[in-house]
Amino acid sequence: MVNVGIVGGTGYTGVELLRLLSQHPRVRISAITSRKEAGMPVADMYPSLRGHVDLAFVSPDDAGLSQCQVVFFATPHGVAMAQARELLAAGVKVIDLAADFRLKDVAEFEQWYGMPHTCPDLLAEAVYGLPELNREAIKQARVIGNPGCYPTSVQLGYAPLLKHQLIEPTGLIANCASGVSGAGRKAEVHALMAEASDNFKAYGVKGHRHGPEINQQLRTIAGHAGVNCLFVPHLLPLIRGIHSTLYAKLNSAGQAADLQAVFESFYQGERFVDVLPAGSAPETRSVRASNTVRIAVHRPLPDTVMVLVVEDNLTKGASGQAVQCMNLMCGFEEHLGLTQVPVLP
Amino acid sequence: MVNVGIVGGTGYTGVELLRLLSQHPRVRISAITSRKEAGMPVADMYPSLRGHVDLAFVSPDDAGLSQCQVVFFATPHGVAMAQARELLAAGVKVIDLAADFRLKDVAEFEQWYGMPHTCPDLLAEAVYGLPELNREAIKQARVIGNPGCYPTSVQLGYAPLLKHQLIEPTGLIANCASGVSGAGRKAEVHALMAEASDNFKAYGVKGHRHGPEINQQLRTIAGHAGVNCLFVPHLLPLIRGIHSTLYAKLNSAGQAADLQAVFESFYQGERFVDVLPAGSAPETRSVRASNTVRIAVHRPLPDTVMVLVVEDNLTKGASGQAVQCMNLMCGFEEHLGLTQVPVLP
Amino acid sequence: MVNVGIVGGTGYTGVELLRLLSQHPRVRISAITSRKEAGMPVADMYPSLRGHVDLAFVSPDDAGLSQCQVVFFATPHGVAMAQARELLAAGVKVIDLAADFRLKDVAEFEQWYGMPHTCPDLLAEAVYGLPELNREAIKQARVIGNPGCYPTSVQLGYAPLLKHQLIEPTGLIANCASGVSGAGRKAEVHALMAEASDNFKAYGVKGHRHGPEINQQLRTIAGHAGVNCLFVPHLLPLIRGIHSTLYAKLNSAGQAADLQAVFESFYQGERFVDVLPAGSAPETRSVRASNTVRIAVHRPLPDTVMVLVVEDNLTKGASGQAVQCMNLMCGFEEHLGLTQVPVLP
Amino acid sequence: MVNVGIVGGTGYTGVELLRLLSQHPRVRISAITSRKEAGMPVADMYPSLRGHVDLAFVSPDDAGLSQCQVVFFATPHGVAMAQARELLAAGVKVIDLAADFRLKDVAEFEQWYGMPHTCPDLLAEAVYGLPELNREAIKQARVIGNPGCYPTSVQLGYAPLLKHQLIEPTGLIANCASGVSGAGRKAEVHALMAEASDNFKAYGVKGHRHGPEINQQLRTIAGHAGVNCLFVPHLLPLIRGIHSTLYAKLNSAGQAADLQAVFESFYQGERFVDVLPAGSAPETRSVRASNTVRIAVHRPLPDTVMVLVVEDNLTKGASGQAVQCMNLMCGFEEHLGLTQVPVLP
Repeated sequence: MVNVGIVGGTGYTGVELLRLLSQHPRVRISAITSRKEAGMPVADMYPSLRGHVDLAFVSPDDAGLSQCQVVFFATPHGVAMAQARELLAAGVKVIDLAADFRLKDVAEFEQWYGMPHTCPDLLAEAVYGLPELNREAIKQARVIGNPGCYPTSVQLGYAPLLKHQLIEPTGLIANCASGVSGAGRKAEVHALMAEASDNFKAYGVKGHRHGPEINQQLRTIAGHAGVNCLFVPHLLPLIRGIHSTLYAKLNSAGQAADLQAVFESFYQGERFVDVLPAGSAPETRSVRASNTVRIAVHRPLPDTVMVLVVEDNLTKGASGQAVQCMNLMCGFEEHLGLTQVPVLP
Repeated sequence: MVNVGIVGGTGYTGVELLRLLSQHPRVRISAITSRKEAGMPVADMYPSLRGHVDLAFVSPDDAGLSQCQVVFFATPHGVAMAQARELLAAGVKVIDLAADFRLKDVAEFEQWYGMPHTCPDLLAEAVYGLPELNREAIKQARVIGNPGCYPTSVQLGYAPLLKHQLIEPTGLIANCASGVSGAGRKAEVHALMAEASDNFKAYGVKGHRHGPEINQQLRTIAGHAGVNCLFVPHLLPLIRGIHSTLYAKLNSAGQAADLQAVFESFYQGERFVDVLPAGSAPETRSVRASNTVRIAVHRPLPDTVMVLVVEDNLTKGASGQAVQCMNLMCGFEEHLGLTQVPVLP
Repeated sequence: MVNVGIVGGTGYTGVELLRLLSQHPRVRISAITSRKEAGMPVADMYPSLRGHVDLAFVSPDDAGLSQCQVVFFATPHGVAMAQARELLAAGVKVIDLAADFRLKDVAEFEQWYGMPHTCPDLLAEAVYGLPELNREAIKQARVIGNPGCYPTSVQLGYAPLLKHQLIEPTGLIANCASGVSGAGRKAEVHALMAEASDNFKAYGVKGHRHGPEINQQLRTIAGHAGVNCLFVPHLLPLIRGIHSTLYAKLNSAGQAADLQAVFESFYQGERFVDVLPAGSAPETRSVRASNTVRIAVHRPLPDTVMVLVVEDNLTKGASGQAVQCMNLMCGFEEHLGLTQVPVLP
Repeated sequence: MVNVGIVGGTGYTGVELLRLLSQHPRVRISAITSRKEAGMPVADMYPSLRGHVDLAFVSPDDAGLSQCQVVFFATPHGVAMAQARELLAAGVKVIDLAADFRLKDVAEFEQWYGMPHTCPDLLAEAVYGLPELNREAIKQARVIGNPGCYPTSVQLGYAPLLKHQLIEPTGLIANCASGVSGAGRKAEVHALMAEASDNFKAYGVKGHRHGPEINQQLRTIAGHAGVNCLFVPHLLPLIRGIHSTLYAKLNSAGQAADLQAVFESFYQGERFVDVLPAGSAPETRSVRASNTVRIAVHRPLPDTVMVLVVEDNLTKGASGQAVQCMNLMCGFEEHLGLTQVPVLP
């Protein structure tokens, strides 16, 4: 058993971590912190956890986080980088579900997140926590930047094509849509049910923080800086689920390739990536509340590839992926605690 | 043409007033106020009004409300009573969509709304604005307390039974459900789409402000203080709509009566109350975005009557009813500006 | 390990059984039948099961059901009674999720389900599968009538009050609401999303099949025939979830009792029944995709008790309860395979 | 007043026609046909129309359609072409909301709709009913092919760019999403609420009937056959609304142009097309239940234009557009009966 702590457990990635970790066979949740809600039993805020989680929120100062083996940050951006150094010094592994350790370029981080980065050395050390593309580094990591929800789906969709150099690296279009839980549990008018349900729109049309993360990672996957992807997010009237419709131009190698075989081969043996049969269209509900990503690849025009990707933004797009990283970092089987069957209907 | 003003137009009853009044053939909207959003074009906040409403929000001080013939208060509780006296002195008719002029008992108002009532004399003068039950008084009124959304449906459902003394006056149960727009456009966590959609619950279980209003009015309808109704609201995962399931014990007169005929006769000629054929179950969508109430009466047990009522909480439950009152107060045909066909599907 | 078969696995109770049983530590799913879809991999119909269930649907004739230890019928009414005798003769335990073995009065069954009952002797033998109220009989049963979704919630809500004789046994009102999955996976216009979403209504207002089941069982619980409950179902615009708002008049013993203590004591030690703290209002989402029922008891008037109950209609209201019965019948721990944490948000 | 008939009024485009036409100041609805529901009052099927439409469905043979000035076909594909010739001979104008008169290439029609075209001469005569792009021809037309819902939004989004030759004509991507009412009122499993709500997916990924219509029309707009657009539809968990996210490469003229000015100028004076201010993202709810299209144009990359378009698929995407065409054909003001304010929230 490892002792884990969760910093900032009142949001949706926090409750999702609790849902997953409370059933993890090798984990004991030692502490879950909230300065504001200290003393309140977690199950009072989230009745779904009654009978599963007996902890109360504690103030970070009383949490004994340095006694944990792993600490998850399910906090706003900026919190993890303020606390990571002390925890690492105490031998604690850190997994940040926010963006503090995602963007390798400090200037880019500061531009998009509007705050200085206070530990560039840790950022340099941090490992990007997408196991299917970065497994060995994660195993050795002390600090993980857990990927953004959209970037997870976009990377897994483009990776086989970029790795095998089957597409033109510019002109990529990632037309994506997310459920409202992606906005977190913040009291904001635009996220009210009377505003967001029975509605659909694009948002972040002047630029979204996941855009630079996507491009950074696609360039890493491709191995060169020439990749450029236009990322356009939309807001779905549902709670959980991301759907990415990805477009690219096939180069001559791509036009000659058996794309279905390329994808099946690339993800062979991956427990959490399911390449659907040719001709399929994945549904978000087919992965609801699970850590699975489902992918379908299409060639709608001779020179065009279209990849459809679905994930649960709170599970594989956030907390499930974080647990998957933890499993790798702790030497556990990668799927421990992540075997939930998607909930359908 | 009458000039009307709207105080506090940034909420849902405000935008609904604008939807209705912008198409009213005898109304000119002179001003819509918001201290916080002064200067912002209304259509910037509500793009649905682009091309229909050209006004910008103005500060109340600049609104020239005393030049209006009618002023609507689509404000939080307490605002109308602070401003009504001055407007009335200037000869303006006042329609308050909040609760300042609903509860006739000052102590009861102060208990449920947590503030002193600052103009008991106006409260005494104010008329309860439910046209089907109070038409003649509304025509003569200077100040209207526009009914609550739930109370409208409950009163219209019980009125024929109470007026004709067909039910036992105690033991009434009003099991009601409302869409989320009833909570208004306030940034609160419980109203987030990720909290309120895909969910159903009772709320206000320790007592809800509409309970005393319902009992006050049912007693007025019955003509005696012996009525007692248990009101239990629930929150529906949809935007617009109230459904009330009303129960009562039939007395011997009620058991002998033809209840369907009683209801049809009671509401004969009422344009906005539709008594459905025997055996029906009204749907909230059948009145969506319209000022109509639909009612079905059932006798599921020999001694029990069940009445099903649907309304759109923002239209007949708030802004539509306010316009209906205005029409009466101004001597217009009662249905002007309220002829919208419900939107289905 | 026990071998289980599922007859008629293409509906929602079928896929829910598969979700639960595919992770049950003591179960091997031997066969899942569908005459119409024989040969189709289950995961082609339900992509959520890809990677979890490798079976294909088989024709009932090829299913080898008589080699199973337990067979579930997730079929339309009438199928189980046609096949149960043969299976029982082969030593197979039968759990029917339809209504063939619920109503003990053959005439009542035939009236409500419009078909003759072909094995009244098995009906007489059959055990009503609500473990919290009937655990010992279930352990010994060969054939189980798995309770209806609504009746489960209504019985668990009224049981403490009836067992302890705290309420008047007539005048009970069960005002209930269910998500659309309760209607099953049948292509019918009224269940289309464009009809059922953004809408709320009562239905079955002339009588619903769960009414007689509720009254039969409440009489059994009370130990006398004098109980009468009016059951009124409503259709919620969500997929999973039942909410029951139950009303009764307290007798003098009830008015003197500590109702909260009565409920807590009655359900002490029950893993799947959670009595909430006084003053609570349970939400359907707090039990989403889990086998838990949550209950809150209120006394809104001195002589009136109100009980609020939530369940997931597909889990505790159907397939989860069936697995719970199976666990009892097989001598397993009652919660095996049923430890899922509710999915929230 | 003109007398109009509606053939096949039981579907969603039929009830939407009734919602609009019942309030049209110059229209008398003479007959609405349904062979299957003949004799049933329309308001029994659609209670939203109670008090607004008093007609009953009649058999087509008894409808006296040849006495109408205009007949709308709100029928499955193939019905209009079977009946149009006779009506035209009687001097009746025909507006087909299905696809019989959309695709000018008979072979293409037959390939996509799986039936022979029985009146190619009428198809040749028929006018494509998109007023903003084809107004003068519509005024003179005897038979109108009313545009598909998706194609309406895609054409209006690309038209300014193609007319002014600002984009490369190939490589267009129309990533679109529609509410479920677009599938009509047919009892099909995939359209059940338990299947389609809380879900999102692409569909028609092997080709959708609106693809050839889009390409035919974009070529007409551009004036040459070199246009090629990849159309990818997705299914939204809401009832009404289409959102199109359109991508194209700007040519050198396009890169030099002020795209916002181009769009504002192109649609100046168009009552039903609203070009939003620069930087906007239109929401489907902002046009709910109205005939308005809202458009925003963006240039996310120097060589890329993105156009966002929203419409209500049942109004501007179907029945509202048909009424708009009728107004033009009858010499009425184009907006008569189409002045509804969008319903928000």
